[in-house]
Amino acid sequence: MPDTVYKIIELVGTSTESWEKAAANAVAKAAETLRDLRIAEVSLLDMHIKDGKVEAYRAKVKVSFKFE
Amino acid sequence: MPDTVYKIIELVGTSTESWEKAAANAVAKAAETLRDLRIAEVSLLDMHIKDGKVEAYRAKVKVSFKFE
Amino acid sequence: MPDTVYKIIELVGTSTESWEKAAANAVAKAAETLRDLRIAEVSLLDMHIKDGKVEAYRAKVKVSFKFE
Amino acid sequence: MPDTVYKIIELVGTSTESWEKAAANAVAKAAETLRDLRIAEVSLLDMHIKDGKVEAYRAKVKVSFKFE
Amino acid sequence: MPDTVYKIIELVGTSTESWEKAAANAVAKAAETLRDLRIAEVSLLDMHIKDGKVEAYRAKVKVSFKFE
Amino acid sequence: MPDTVYKIIELVGTSTESWEKAAANAVAKAAETLRDLRIAEVSLLDMHIKDGKVEAYRAKVKVSFKFE
Amino acid sequence: MPDTVYKIIELVGTSTESWEKAAANAVAKAAETLRDLRIAEVSLLDMHIKDGKVEAYRAKVKVSFKFE
Amino acid sequence: MPDTVYKIIELVGTSTESWEKAAANAVAKAAETLRDLRIAEVSLLDMHIKDGKVEAYRAKVKVSFKFE
Amino acid sequence: MPDTVYKIIELVGTSTESWEKAAANAVAKAAETLRDLRIAEVSLLDMHIKDGKVEAYRAKVKVSFKFE
Amino acid sequence: MPDTVYKIIELVGTSTESWEKAAANAVAKAAETLRDLRIAEVSLLDMHIKDGKVEAYRAKVKVSFKFE
Amino acid sequence: MPDTVYKIIELVGTSTESWEKAAANAVAKAAETLRDLRIAEVSLLDMHIKDGKVEAYRAKVKVSFKFE
Amino acid sequence: MPDTVYKIIELVGTSTESWEKAAANAVAKAAETLRDLRIAEVSLLDMHIKDGKVEAYRAKVKVSFKFE
Repeated sequence: MPDTVYKIIELVGTSTESWEKAAANAVAKAAETLRDLRIAEVSLLDMHIKDGKVEAYRAKVKVSFKFE
Repeated sequence: MPDTVYKIIELVGTSTESWEKAAANAVAKAAETLRDLRIAEVSLLDMHIKDGKVEAYRAKVKVSFKFE
Repeated sequence: MPDTVYKIIELVGTSTESWEKAAANAVAKAAETLRDLRIAEVSLLDMHIKDGKVEAYRAKVKVSFKFE
Repeated sequence: MPDTVYKIIELVGTSTESWEKAAANAVAKAAETLRDLRIAEVSLLDMHIKDGKVEAYRAKVKVSFKFE
Repeated sequence: MPDTVYKIIELVGTSTESWEKAAANAVAKAAETLRDLRIAEVSLLDMHIKDGKVEAYRAKVKVSFKFE
Repeated sequence: MPDTVYKIIELVGTSTESWEKAAANAVAKAAETLRDLRIAEVSLLDMHIKDGKVEAYRAKVKVSFKFE
Repeated sequence: MPDTVYKIIELVGTSTESWEKAAANAVAKAAETLRDLRIAEVSLLDMHIKDGKVEAYRAKVKVSFKFE
Repeated sequence: MPDTVYKIIELVGTSTESWEKAAANAVAKAAETLRDLRIAEVSLLDMHIKDGKVEAYRAKVKVSFKFE
Repeated sequence: MPDTVYKIIELVGTSTESWEKAAANAVAKAAETLRDLRIAEVSLLDMHIKDGKVEAYRAKVKVSFKFE
Repeated sequence: MPDTVYKIIELVGTSTESWEKAAANAVAKAAETLRDLRIAEVSLLDMHIKDGKVEAYRAKVKVSFKFE
Repeated sequence: MPDTVYKIIELVGTSTESWEKAAANAVAKAAETLRDLRIAEVSLLDMHIKDGKVEAYRAKVKVSFKFE
Repeated sequence: MPDTVYKIIELVGTSTESWEKAAANAVAKAAETLRDLRIAEVSLLDMHIKDGKVEAYRAKVKVSFKFE
């Protein structure tokens, strides 16, 4: 482990159902192009509201992965 | 957009099921009297515990809407 | 109430399904040995990722209970 | 409790004697027009100084009450 | 001063020119319905971007005024 | 001093009179079972309100003591 | 919107005139290589001083854009 | 007012009785050598404990005054 | 550079026009008596309001300079 | 991992040589009585000064371990 | 300088010896692919523990460099 | 102790070797002109980078001493 350097990027995922899915969407998108994703830490949760109802749950996450 | 001023109020919603429903309850209550709700940002999540079990999920949210 | 002193401890619970269950797992574990749990406040939410997918949701919570 | 939504407002109370009285003054003022006040959390304490002496203690508090 | 209680509300103002005007717009709007505005403290500055250019400067401000 | 390790625990004390007594109550309770208490740092002050009046002052404190 | 994931990067722009231009410079630079810039949030404002005068205004901003 | 520049210094005052007196002691000490003290804002409250009892209340305050 | 120690002081500057001028005023005042000013970092921006209008923009800045 | 609950405690370690040794001392002390220590996160670093020299480096750390 | 835009990325470096080496490892890795690294600011220090001993020191750093 | 008032100043020390030496350099410089230094608390650690290598470790510290 001592030789590895990790990078952390910040993403915002969205879901009409839950913050878990919003965060998982961000992780899935990151996994398309990045290897060795390790931890994703929530930095903000919010909701987009339309016509007085929650239209989307959004999760801002800091994802760490191997920096190569 | 430049002419619009938004106001932000802080609410606490509650649900026996999830933080999403707790937050959505706060938004629904706000929508009864306020127009043009836009974003609700979570500032705190907690749980009320009774007899060693989670009795309610609570979400403190900052809701922004058109200030008229 | 004036005579009671509460103690607050910090726990991390885990669930493959949701942050609500992760937090509830931490509360349930605390309830095995501690009496009069009252409030659990979320201080951090994160996810453990494996093979590009969310493997576990984790909730760090500060649980307050009667200090005896 | 699940059906109740709480609102939180921020007030600044003042007293020539103590921060407790400053905070209590803010609560008393809020109680004139709002029902079901529940918790008031201190967000800032400061002092107004005149001629090198403390002229007033001020407490900024976030007061939660039933949102109707 | 000891007898006065102040209330603090959070507003977001917008301007195509500067954060000073964005904040001043929020204050001007508040002054239409509130008396004795005293201080407005910036809690966040951001920009709305369109087609790669800053379309609007926005200032989130906490405005304090006499609570009556 | 280099050989000593301190532990920090978080407590909430309550008093009907002042935050000083609320904090001192938490310290007194801790002193019943812990040795060599050293510093207690306030992390939050709040008030419990009933019928529009402050019913209790509460102080959340982080108490450090010799870890044995 | 639910299908879109946004990425947030942190930039520092500089201007001899104002923080608005400093922030706009950072946005303009980002727009050369990134599509769908949406929001830029100020995380720090500072000044570089030379010979007792402000030589440059600098704005640290977090810019969000479509993650593709 | 536009021509005045204020300086802010951080002091720690102590009292065996209360945080108000601890803070007032810091202000009184500052007033011996500084003119036009204006506001003192609390940044930390703590207690020194001896033999299981609160020996002293301490207040860390940021004091602003005219910078000449 | 290794031999140099810098000191950081906190000042509040004011301007009727902009936060840039408010901050620059604080820097100019500091430059009258201090050498080798280097960086000034904004810690707070606020406005003084009178008769419903912004009377002055104020910038709280932390100025670093050579400590001799 | 889903079944495990972790507890986090806060300790202060001390060393006359470095913050690494101060933190390692706190971990070593915790390891005498606790099993499955996992991560220790620094929450504060400070120094005790005597006769104008650093007498001891201190590290406040939050240590997580299996809660059984 | 006014024409330059800097980008800031967050990395985690690791070392079995010290936080200085952990941070320097992250910087060295970044220098393999990025030009004009300027400042690296520590945002978190922690330790990985194994068998009750510190196995690795880790430093999370925010590195700024010329954005081209 | 109740009669003593402490002042806290913020300094930045630098070292080519370690953050401990950087912080100790700041303390040593302060000790040349100030009496009764007591505690120095780290508020920021960073590094100056040149040609892809760490050129200097810097420690921002808040030093408390007797205010006379």
